[in-house]
Amino acid sequence: MRSMFTSESQFVDWLKRVCQARSDSAVVGIGDDAALVRPGSKQEIILTTDLSVEGVHFRRQLHPARSVGHRALARALSDIAAMGGTPRFALLSLALSRTTSRRWVEDFYTGAQVLARRTGTQIIGGDTALVSGPTSVDAVVAGEVPRGTALLRSGARAGDRIFVSGRLGLSALGLRMLKAGSSPVTARRSGHPLHAHLFPEPRLALGRFLRESRLASAVMDLSDGLSTDLARLCRASGVGAVLGTERLPLPNFPPIASNARLSAARADLLRLALNGGEDYELLFAVPQRKAKHVPKRYRGLPLTCIGEIRRSAGLYLSLPDGILKPLRAGGFEHFHRSHH
Amino acid sequence: MRSMFTSESQFVDWLKRVCQARSDSAVVGIGDDAALVRPGSKQEIILTTDLSVEGVHFRRQLHPARSVGHRALARALSDIAAMGGTPRFALLSLALSRTTSRRWVEDFYTGAQVLARRTGTQIIGGDTALVSGPTSVDAVVAGEVPRGTALLRSGARAGDRIFVSGRLGLSALGLRMLKAGSSPVTARRSGHPLHAHLFPEPRLALGRFLRESRLASAVMDLSDGLSTDLARLCRASGVGAVLGTERLPLPNFPPIASNARLSAARADLLRLALNGGEDYELLFAVPQRKAKHVPKRYRGLPLTCIGEIRRSAGLYLSLPDGILKPLRAGGFEHFHRSHH
Repeated sequence: MRSMFTSESQFVDWLKRVCQARSDSAVVGIGDDAALVRPGSKQEIILTTDLSVEGVHFRRQLHPARSVGHRALARALSDIAAMGGTPRFALLSLALSRTTSRRWVEDFYTGAQVLARRTGTQIIGGDTALVSGPTSVDAVVAGEVPRGTALLRSGARAGDRIFVSGRLGLSALGLRMLKAGSSPVTARRSGHPLHAHLFPEPRLALGRFLRESRLASAVMDLSDGLSTDLARLCRASGVGAVLGTERLPLPNFPPIASNARLSAARADLLRLALNGGEDYELLFAVPQRKAKHVPKRYRGLPLTCIGEIRRSAGLYLSLPDGILKPLRAGGFEHFHRSHH
Repeated sequence: MRSMFTSESQFVDWLKRVCQARSDSAVVGIGDDAALVRPGSKQEIILTTDLSVEGVHFRRQLHPARSVGHRALARALSDIAAMGGTPRFALLSLALSRTTSRRWVEDFYTGAQVLARRTGTQIIGGDTALVSGPTSVDAVVAGEVPRGTALLRSGARAGDRIFVSGRLGLSALGLRMLKAGSSPVTARRSGHPLHAHLFPEPRLALGRFLRESRLASAVMDLSDGLSTDLARLCRASGVGAVLGTERLPLPNFPPIASNARLSAARADLLRLALNGGEDYELLFAVPQRKAKHVPKRYRGLPLTCIGEIRRSAGLYLSLPDGILKPLRAGGFEHFHRSHH
């Protein structure tokens, strides 16, 4: 017998305990009509909302509930990171499948709460309903950024260098390993594909660094794959781009033993790096004259120059032989009919 | 052939047009990583999130898409009203059933947008995904209220008079009429049960009046039925309450012709008034010495004294013969096993 919370008040009481909702800055938390937030002076509020849907963003058979909670919140925190902001408050709305156990809900909140604490985010409310279909979660995060300093997608200019953090395609590789039967409990090591997939780290410190250093002309987070997201940044900025395939920071896992298999493995990893979603790394453009000031690593996280912004629209891959090949958006776009 | 938007950029472009996202106060709207909001000085931000799930809060066969959009936003705006706030921005996240037509999505946004404009709310973003189950919508609204003046649930004290706005049970009566085959197009007249159900009006002006007049010691909105919601207000305030059954403002529709049927009809309406959800009227407590300053109507909306706060916990109904009968929470609580 699966046991759910037997009443709303029992759920609210439990949630208050788990989230320790009250503090000075969140004036009213879980349990009143809405949450009341006192913003700092001279701050702008960043608001973001991200859906995580069972069967689309996670699968109950593959993803432990703790990972689902972590990832639901990480998706929204990554948007805050991409604007150079500091997360303050989160609201989690759960449309829970009727087959959900209380244990699943508890583990979900544990996953969200661990990430929330570590990033200074307070979970102050939300809504809950039981549904006859798959579970979906909407994570709303409110963050702060000093007035007029938020990092946008729209400032990239011709000649700007394009950078990414971390290694691309790790999350897609982790998902593939999960589907092939890898156990989620092996996901402890940071940098491991399983860890990258199940517990992605929103790049909040890097986002703040880019804002404070004023290095970047445009920033966004990689949620749907480089080929899709770079197209968005270019559209917002009214520019195009060329990427060097040799420059992309591919996963260094699994280690490739024989030279014979190297080329096929590299082509596969390249596809993952271009089209694999949910890396939650930052993609940013830097004016050419400032590019030399971008460190090789920021707090251990590699920052790699992968290409250049062009004046004319269109995205291209520069192959090792110098040939330019059009780059099609092949990432994870929820609205595509092909994902039905 | 049902046609959905063929790409995310097409959807975002359409949404920008519909919502006219940019303005001075919302610095960045639909299309960047997140929405950026510039709060007024000396204001607190109210954040609220409300789920509307197909099969729980609406049915595709009964509720036109315009009504679903209106109601999804109205649920969240009603929370802002209950705190005496002014709505500013909304984010709408849609987990859309794959069988949804583009027309449905357009009508949904029309319904939300008409209410948003009328209440001064800007729709500045959201998220969208296609799901294999029923459609669910998460409406997030950010509002403002001057620091330290938000109306809470927790201030009711023994002796306070309990008031409600409007007439209770109208929405449940409207739902019953819809189920019995009434056409939604007859819902034009404000005050008609169908109108109350399909296009409920968040009581924003009344909420602000209660805040500015400092009449109320505790306020909340009636979303799940008087018997359920009054229990919440009393729990938050650490008090109990007695309601006079004769005092409840019942629907005056349908007009009751014969005296013989009067008693049965009244008992039925009384049940709807106590347990029917989604009225979105305001429930508020007023200290006894201030009760005489509560107007009979506020901008045409009747305000009715329905009972009194008691020191000891527990909710009671005072019957016409003076007998006190315990009031059980019979409203719409999403977490109840009985709703499975």
